[in-house]
Amino acid sequence: MKICIAPGDGIGPEIMAEAVRVLKALDLKMEFEEAQVGGCAVDATGDPLPEASQKLVREADAILLGAVGGPKWDANPREQRPERGLLRIRKDLNLFANFRPAILYAELANASSLKPDIVSGLDILIVRELTGDIYFGQPRAIEIRDGERFGFNTMHYSESEIRRIGRVAFEAARKRNKRLCSVDKMNVLETSQLWREVMIELEPEYPDVELSHMLVDNAAMQLVRNPRQFDVIVTGNMFGDILSDEAAMLTGSIGMLPSASLDENSKGMYEPSHGSAPDIAGKGLANPLATILSAAMMLRYTFSLDEHAQRIENAVQKVLAEGYRTGDIYEPGLKRVGTTQMGDAVLAAL
Amino acid sequence: MKICIAPGDGIGPEIMAEAVRVLKALDLKMEFEEAQVGGCAVDATGDPLPEASQKLVREADAILLGAVGGPKWDANPREQRPERGLLRIRKDLNLFANFRPAILYAELANASSLKPDIVSGLDILIVRELTGDIYFGQPRAIEIRDGERFGFNTMHYSESEIRRIGRVAFEAARKRNKRLCSVDKMNVLETSQLWREVMIELEPEYPDVELSHMLVDNAAMQLVRNPRQFDVIVTGNMFGDILSDEAAMLTGSIGMLPSASLDENSKGMYEPSHGSAPDIAGKGLANPLATILSAAMMLRYTFSLDEHAQRIENAVQKVLAEGYRTGDIYEPGLKRVGTTQMGDAVLAAL
Ligand SMILES: CC(C)[C@H](C(=O)O)[C@@H](O)C(=O)O
Ligand SMILES: CC(C)[C@H](C(=O)O)[C@@H](O)C(=O)O
Repeated sequence: MKICIAPGDGIGPEIMAEAVRVLKALDLKMEFEEAQVGGCAVDATGDPLPEASQKLVREADAILLGAVGGPKWDANPREQRPERGLLRIRKDLNLFANFRPAILYAELANASSLKPDIVSGLDILIVRELTGDIYFGQPRAIEIRDGERFGFNTMHYSESEIRRIGRVAFEAARKRNKRLCSVDKMNVLETSQLWREVMIELEPEYPDVELSHMLVDNAAMQLVRNPRQFDVIVTGNMFGDILSDEAAMLTGSIGMLPSASLDENSKGMYEPSHGSAPDIAGKGLANPLATILSAAMMLRYTFSLDEHAQRIENAVQKVLAEGYRTGDIYEPGLKRVGTTQMGDAVLAAL
Repeated sequence: MKICIAPGDGIGPEIMAEAVRVLKALDLKMEFEEAQVGGCAVDATGDPLPEASQKLVREADAILLGAVGGPKWDANPREQRPERGLLRIRKDLNLFANFRPAILYAELANASSLKPDIVSGLDILIVRELTGDIYFGQPRAIEIRDGERFGFNTMHYSESEIRRIGRVAFEAARKRNKRLCSVDKMNVLETSQLWREVMIELEPEYPDVELSHMLVDNAAMQLVRNPRQFDVIVTGNMFGDILSDEAAMLTGSIGMLPSASLDENSKGMYEPSHGSAPDIAGKGLANPLATILSAAMMLRYTFSLDEHAQRIENAVQKVLAEGYRTGDIYEPGLKRVGTTQMGDAVLAAL
C-alpha cells in the first residue's frame, strides 16, 4: 500500500500529522511518501504540482491531502494558484467520482445553524462528477471582442461521462437507503438535458433504487427547507461544488467531514471538506478529525479494509462521546483540546 | 401607466386577481391589459410567448406576472416549455437587473428552518444579472461527437455587461447598508476572473460602499452559516439563480417574497419568487402576498410611486401583525385564511 501524503498549506501539515499517526497505529503494511502540492509547492518551485509531486501522486495507490490555498497566493496567475495543483491531480488521475458525505453527529447537533428537528440524524451523500463540466471545458479564455474584454467558458458532458458517474451514484444509493436524486438545470441547459436523459436511461438497470430529478435552484432550496428528504444526490462538477458545500454547512461542523475522489479502479485522493484556515495555521488549534476520517475512507474505498476504517470511525465517535472538542466544535462544559490532543484522544480510543 | 398582467399557470390567476384588486384600490390612473404567457399560452397557441403577448409586454410600462410552469408541460421540447416565455421576455426587453430580496418578517420568524438567533431580522438583497451568462450563451446544443451524444453550453460575460449590473448593485447598496458582496468562481472560471476584475475597477466610483468578494461555493455555505453577514449580493445569472433561491428559503416563507427584473430605463417585470404550485391551484389556498408585494415593487421601481408602494407594504405588515395567515405560513392560534380573504384583509388594511 503506497500512500502519498500531501499536507499542503495552512493547517494542512498539522492535521495531516495526526491522520498519519492514526494510520501508523493500525500496523498495516503502508509506505508513506510526502509530496508538495499547492501553495507550498508554488513557493518552493513556482508550480503547484511540480514534476516530482506528479510522479509521486501517479505512483501511489492513494493520496491523502491536507488542504491547499490561502490569501498569500490569491493574486497569482491561474497556473500558479494552489488550487491548480488539486485540479490537475483530479484530471491527470481521472478521479471523476467525488464522494462528499454530509453527516450530522448526534453529539454536534447544536453546531448546526438549523433547528434540531430539521437536521438531527442528517446523513446525505453527495456524488459529484469531478473531471468534466465547465471546470475543464474548452474553449475558455478572456479575449478582446468588439473592442472590449470578453470572458467565456464551456460547460459540457458526453453521455459516457454522465453514465459513468451515474452508475457510481446508483451503486452508492443501493448500499444506502436506495434513493437517488439527480440534480440538473434541464429547463435551461442542453448539457443538463442530456444529463437527465442519460440518468433516465440508467434507471432500469437499478430497479431497487428510486430515482428522482430536481432542478439545481430547487435543490439549493430543499437542502435548507428539509435536508433529510435526501439520501444520495448526484450532480455535475459545478453544481456539485456549490451544493456539497451548502450541504456540508447544514451540519455546522465542516471540520468533521471527509471526502473521497476516485478513479475507475478505486485509486483515490482523500481530503477533508474544509479549507486551509490560514488564520489558525501553526497554532495547534485545528480540528484533525475530517482528515482522520478521510484516512478511514481511504482504507475503505481504495484498500477495501472496511474493518480498519470502521475502527477509526468508531474511535472518532468515541472521542466525541467523551466530550473532546477542538475550538470549531466546542461547547461550554466539554473538554476543549488542540490538534495533537485530539489526535491523542483518537489514538487512545483506537 | 400601462400595465401588462400575465397571470400564467397554476396558482397564478388566483394570486394575480388579489394583486390587481389592491392596485385598483389605490385609484391611480392605470390601464391593465392581460397577456397569456407560459403553459396557458402553450395550450392556447403552442407558443409560451405568442405574438399577441409579445406585443403587449413590449408596449407596457411594466409587467406583473403570476407564475409559470407545471408538470403538465415538463415533457415538452424546450421552445414549448412555459419557462421559455419568461426567458424570452427577459431577453427581448433587456431586463438585465433582477432584484430578489430575502426578508424575514418578524411575525414569520418561526417559519424558517434556521434557528431564530441566526435569521431574525434577515434582510438581504440579491442582485442577479438576468440576460447573459450560460442562460443565453452561444454555441449550445446536443450533438453527436465521436459516436456519442455530447451536450454543451457557453458561459460568457463582456466587461460592459458586468459593469452595467455592477453599477446597479453598487447603487442599491448605497441606498441600504453600503456593503456589497460580489460572488464568482474566479479560481476556476475565466468568465468569473473578468467579473471580479470589472467589479474591482468599479470600486473607486463608490467610495461609500464596501465591496467584498466571495467564491460561489463559500457563498452557498455562508448563507447557511451566518446569512446576516450579507447586505447586497451581486452575481451572474447562473449563480444568482441558485443563491437567490437558497437565500429565499432561509426565510421559510417564500410565499412572501417579491422580485423585480428591470431594464436600463426602469421598465420592469415583477413577479413573486415562488412557483406555480400546481398542487394547490384553483383551490383558493395560495398566498397572494408575494404578488401583492411585487405590485408594490412595481410602483416604486417603474413608476417612482414610493408612497403608494409603502402603503401596500404597510398594509401587508399590518395583516401579518393582525394574525392573518394562508396555509403556507400558518401557525396554530392564528387566523387561517384563503387567497381571497387575504386579499380582503390587505384591502381593509389599506
Ligand atoms: C479549490 C477549488 C478549485 C475546488 C473546486 O471548486 O472544486 C474546491 O472548492 C472543492 O470543492 O474541492
Ligand atoms: C424558470 C427558470 C427558467 C428561472 C431561471 O432559472 O431563471 C427560475 O428558476 C427563476 O429563477 O426565475
